[in-house]
Amino acid sequence: MSLMLLARALPEPVKDLIKTTRNNTGLALVRLFSSSGFLSSVYYCLISREFDREHRAVLLGRLHFAQRMLGKGENDAFLRRNVHRLEKGLIMRPRRSTFAEDYIGPTVRCYADATRAGVVNGQQRWANDVLTDYFSAVGSTPRIDSAKRAFTSTENPDETNRCVPYPHSQLPDCPVSYDELMVLFRRRRSVRWYQDKPVSNELIEQAVSAAALAPSACNRQPFRFYVSNGKEKAAEVAKCAGGTAGFHDNLPCVIAVVGDLGCYPEARDRHVVYIDGSLAAMQLMLALESLGLSSCSINWPDVEERERQLAKILGLAYQERTVMLLAVGYADPTGGIPYSDKKTEKDLIIYN
Amino acid sequence: MSLMLLARALPEPVKDLIKTTRNNTGLALVRLFSSSGFLSSVYYCLISREFDREHRAVLLGRLHFAQRMLGKGENDAFLRRNVHRLEKGLIMRPRRSTFAEDYIGPTVRCYADATRAGVVNGQQRWANDVLTDYFSAVGSTPRIDSAKRAFTSTENPDETNRCVPYPHSQLPDCPVSYDELMVLFRRRRSVRWYQDKPVSNELIEQAVSAAALAPSACNRQPFRFYVSNGKEKAAEVAKCAGGTAGFHDNLPCVIAVVGDLGCYPEARDRHVVYIDGSLAAMQLMLALESLGLSSCSINWPDVEERERQLAKILGLAYQERTVMLLAVGYADPTGGIPYSDKKTEKDLIIYN
Ligand SMILES: Cc1cc2nc3c(=O)[nH]c(=O)nc-3n(C[C@H](O)[C@H](O)[C@H](O)COP(=O)(O)O)c2cc1C
Ligand SMILES: Cc1cc2nc3c(=O)[nH]c(=O)nc-3n(C[C@H](O)[C@H](O)[C@H](O)COP(=O)(O)O)c2cc1C
Repeated sequence: MSLMLLARALPEPVKDLIKTTRNNTGLALVRLFSSSGFLSSVYYCLISREFDREHRAVLLGRLHFAQRMLGKGENDAFLRRNVHRLEKGLIMRPRRSTFAEDYIGPTVRCYADATRAGVVNGQQRWANDVLTDYFSAVGSTPRIDSAKRAFTSTENPDETNRCVPYPHSQLPDCPVSYDELMVLFRRRRSVRWYQDKPVSNELIEQAVSAAALAPSACNRQPFRFYVSNGKEKAAEVAKCAGGTAGFHDNLPCVIAVVGDLGCYPEARDRHVVYIDGSLAAMQLMLALESLGLSSCSINWPDVEERERQLAKILGLAYQERTVMLLAVGYADPTGGIPYSDKKTEKDLIIYN
Repeated sequence: MSLMLLARALPEPVKDLIKTTRNNTGLALVRLFSSSGFLSSVYYCLISREFDREHRAVLLGRLHFAQRMLGKGENDAFLRRNVHRLEKGLIMRPRRSTFAEDYIGPTVRCYADATRAGVVNGQQRWANDVLTDYFSAVGSTPRIDSAKRAFTSTENPDETNRCVPYPHSQLPDCPVSYDELMVLFRRRRSVRWYQDKPVSNELIEQAVSAAALAPSACNRQPFRFYVSNGKEKAAEVAKCAGGTAGFHDNLPCVIAVVGDLGCYPEARDRHVVYIDGSLAAMQLMLALESLGLSSCSINWPDVEERERQLAKILGLAYQERTVMLLAVGYADPTGGIPYSDKKTEKDLIIYN
């Protein structure tokens, strides 16, 4: 601490020199270690601690996934992924006479476990309907037959909604023109100044059910929305982030978009929580806008101390990774909106 | 290879046993190394190579950023971030009499370098307007005054559009109702079967200019869209992904959403390319839908061999990271759409 004070008291040119030297040494190291993938891994093992939390979260995610597979409850992510794969098999052109042989056994087991555990939800109905269609469409092999027996001996729901593939022509027409959408996209600006007016949970729920319709890899939807509604709670969460200085006390509601690495058995899918979480967050912001509410995404970089703070407040497991925070509220009409120039399609497109 | 054949010829129970043993050993290692952040980093340094490419991309991104700072051209990401920060300072309540002292010098330098290099684009006009407002609003300190002199001695554009903060009340009303948005979100389904009908580049450009309006951390917009239009090119790119088996030859157009880690000086912001890229991708998909086009996101997990293939086809730099691929085309109305049950707000919200 006194060293910090001393450092601050140094004259500017000396400070600059120290900073430059430190930066240059740092960069020389970066240049050296970036010469190969292995050395880069050595760098993030021995020199920098910045990947520690992510490495550990990925490992714990893999463990968690394995434990969910062994448990007799429901491995939600596993079941969703496999039912999704069955649907993809069902719509294939030409459809193969047998498919999904290598995972149909575990899929039925996972479905049956959840049924026995008394889980009744949309996912279970969907799984039941798709499995029914699958077994009536697919040819016979020893593995498929054995899975079929296991499926028929499970107590299935009487009623079904026929949650199975359908032709694209059955979808509703698009009710929004390109021009209207552009106005909506222009209207959605990051808002940092809000009216002192509470946001009802009902509206948040409406917006989340719109966000839930976003695409996600293998339909896993590996995210959750931790809602801190009310200025006090919102400020407590918002303060954990670095990017809210000067306006965190002004936020009526803050939503943390959090992804769960426990949905993946393999490290290579570790970015999907950020991708799926952000796709849903975008639909969330647009839905909020249509409900009269504004929002502001808040950055959540990987900073150990802040991770701990937020995990404590929200009760996050280690393998849960925060994608972003989202401030939500009624915009103060007099509040300033940065112009925020956007790149054009000319800047952004590269034709191959 | 002959070992593989041998392995395949083994009876099923033996295969299962081997697989289980391998998995269990793997999991035991994962459990052991996941006990601390440091050990987890040891795991991804000595035992698994799955993080090598990302580690190296992050290091090369940092180097790239530093080189752009030293170069006499434009560090686009640096300038955008700082102009954004100036705008945030300008809308602050109460506005501080002096702010941005620690970065105004480098910001003006970066702006002037780009001006001298002859860069004239929206970003330059935006930077000019915001810097003008900043210097007329901010108090006097030695550092600010010196930056101001540097700014005034730069040849600034005569005309400006006044690209500066404005009150929220100036935004257009929201032209889309919640119900209409829900129908749009329901209509956007992942489409895997397309009509044999080309997609015009003009429509792609329209959709990308809508995507460009999405929010991005510090307004950096660290992504680009690599467009492979035409079935042959599209198939070449789509084949690099694992998730297109059975339908990659059917895609009229494929867009790779690619983020650039060269926009960041620090490792802790490494996930932002996935987040910003996905927010933009979501708006892209919705805009496509409003233009009569369907899409399907395609997973891009971290797999070394595939990374190399795609980098070669598209000419990607090492620090460029693919967020996802996106198939685009006119949906075949008879093509099957998986039901893809979605979670509800009850599954997704946790109240704090
Ligand atoms: C991932 C992400 C993180 C962001 N973090 C912050 C933040 O910490 N603080 C803030 O005031 N704005 C933040 N923003 C908002 C951006 O500054 C804003 O999106 C950008 O300047 C473009 O302006 P617009 O959203 O009004 O179009 C963030 C946006 C995104 C997408
Ligand atoms: C990040 C991401 C990756 C995806 N990867 C694939 C893929 O590789 N192959 C595929 O056919 N579908 C892929 N999808 C589409 C999902 O399967 C689809 O979004 C999900 O099943 C929900 O269905 P919907 O998009 O029709 O709402 C992907 C979606 C996302 C968001």
